[in-house]
Amino acid sequence: MARRPVDVPSLVEAARAGSPRAVARLITLVENASPALREVMAALAPYTGTASIIGLTGSPGVGKSTTTSALVRAYREQGKRVGVLAVDPSSPFSGGALLGDRIRLGEHALDPEVYVRSMASRGHLGGLSWATPQALRVLDAAGCEVILLETVGVGQSEVEVAGLADTVMVLLAPGMGDGIQAAKAGILEIGDLFVVNKADRDGADATVRDLRYMISLAEGREAGEWRPVVDKLVAERGEGLEEVLGSIAKHRAWLESSGELGHRRRRRAEDEIEAIAVAQLRSRMGEVDRGEGMTQLAQQVASGELDAYRAADELLAKLP
Amino acid sequence: MARRPVDVPSLVEAARAGSPRAVARLITLVENASPALREVMAALAPYTGTASIIGLTGSPGVGKSTTTSALVRAYREQGKRVGVLAVDPSSPFSGGALLGDRIRLGEHALDPEVYVRSMASRGHLGGLSWATPQALRVLDAAGCEVILLETVGVGQSEVEVAGLADTVMVLLAPGMGDGIQAAKAGILEIGDLFVVNKADRDGADATVRDLRYMISLAEGREAGEWRPVVDKLVAERGEGLEEVLGSIAKHRAWLESSGELGHRRRRRAEDEIEAIAVAQLRSRMGEVDRGEGMTQLAQQVASGELDAYRAADELLAKLP
Repeated sequence: MARRPVDVPSLVEAARAGSPRAVARLITLVENASPALREVMAALAPYTGTASIIGLTGSPGVGKSTTTSALVRAYREQGKRVGVLAVDPSSPFSGGALLGDRIRLGEHALDPEVYVRSMASRGHLGGLSWATPQALRVLDAAGCEVILLETVGVGQSEVEVAGLADTVMVLLAPGMGDGIQAAKAGILEIGDLFVVNKADRDGADATVRDLRYMISLAEGREAGEWRPVVDKLVAERGEGLEEVLGSIAKHRAWLESSGELGHRRRRRAEDEIEAIAVAQLRSRMGEVDRGEGMTQLAQQVASGELDAYRAADELLAKLP
Repeated sequence: MARRPVDVPSLVEAARAGSPRAVARLITLVENASPALREVMAALAPYTGTASIIGLTGSPGVGKSTTTSALVRAYREQGKRVGVLAVDPSSPFSGGALLGDRIRLGEHALDPEVYVRSMASRGHLGGLSWATPQALRVLDAAGCEVILLETVGVGQSEVEVAGLADTVMVLLAPGMGDGIQAAKAGILEIGDLFVVNKADRDGADATVRDLRYMISLAEGREAGEWRPVVDKLVAERGEGLEEVLGSIAKHRAWLESSGELGHRRRRRAEDEIEAIAVAQLRSRMGEVDRGEGMTQLAQQVASGELDAYRAADELLAKLP
């Protein structure tokens, strides 16, 4: 299919000037791993590095969308341009995300200062680590001061979100998981801020207490380190939202004063560079012996003639 | 910490002779990515390729452990040596799995012909793809005719199990997800066999009907291709177990007659070789400019001075 070539400089200019269409087009180029992506990223780089990226994760049913919507409203009232990137890692086979971008966050659909985008992570190993940082850069360069990165909390994806955000907010709901469950799921290690949503329900105080207790048990916290905060929220009615916004702002101030912001961003850049480099090396591996190299080695490994380590050595020795 | 060196030939000999301790030790070497792993895998390779690997996945609560236990009992009655590898991808930070190997499948704990092992996938990107195939090879070389590879069905992990097993069994329970849910979760594409467990509960027939309907809608199935089977089971009482065993055997026969078994194993070997090669390349990338290369490039990307693609190019150009 012949497609019209991408005019990258105009597209980047339009995105920076605030065109939602241009932003959407750029993210589509990211999703499709367009050949123009290199040029896009080179053009965007000078304008990136200013957005606050807030990761938002939690099990299905804790109220992530409602909370995201409440946060968007609050930041819009502060006059900030806001980006929302919703990543759905539970949808490995779908090329698109389950919820259309238009029906998500309906109340903000017509606000030109709010960019909402859903992405499926498509079952790629490292799907999130490959495309999501690039999409975040698009939103950052498009002038979003706050980017909400929302993902369903299922194991791996939470850890990946933690790696991509400046501030990680873990949402819980009363009765959906106590402190011990949180500890088992590994989320205690990744959250900068825990928000017990639906806090008007029974058991909210017990969940808050459990979480605070589990956090207090976490060992090895040194002076000057961030101590995770636990807030209550009823996102649907906006109750407790001020406290949550205050906690996010406090974490941001700590990130800046402690040097942790720079540290997190460098680590993130390392992951991004590595992901791109690995993808290129994978493609070179596929070219060994005109594409036949891997097939022949796999045949030998499958038959027990060769072990996978020696096969990997042979493949690497022939790398173009 | 000085550790006694591993006597690989003796260990492999003992595992092949049926020593559960030797099998356990070998899998621990895999989990710890021991330096002896290369030697272990080279020694095991000639004895691999005979086990039937049955993947077993499904959401929490569908009865995976009970079903695994019932299958182990049935294969033991056929006189087969059985391996069980339970991978817990929801436990990214734990070095060990949540359930101890001894308390799992308690009734088989004393049977020397049953090897049971839990592994956590540890939040590695590609955690499952790295260590699990090696652990499967250990069990295969140790003479297990059947290996049950059990994992909690959460998005990515199901897809990975599908890539590692000869036969993929997806467990469901009535009322826990109808056909449409299955379609959304992407499991229709990966299952060779769907088992509706707890089939004595209300709604079992409706779930079976939904699944069969969704399968019938799947397009592009050609003559000679496998058509996924839907069976009912009450694993706790063994009701329907004969049918499930029959379906597994039928799928196995089809795998062999169609050539698909060889195809799946070659594809699996490709993934394994690639995972090992990528791990080695990652380690080489970490050595660029005596370990400083990545840090400097990441600093430039974080500051917007350089984009991640050009940084990746520079890194690859310096690869030792």
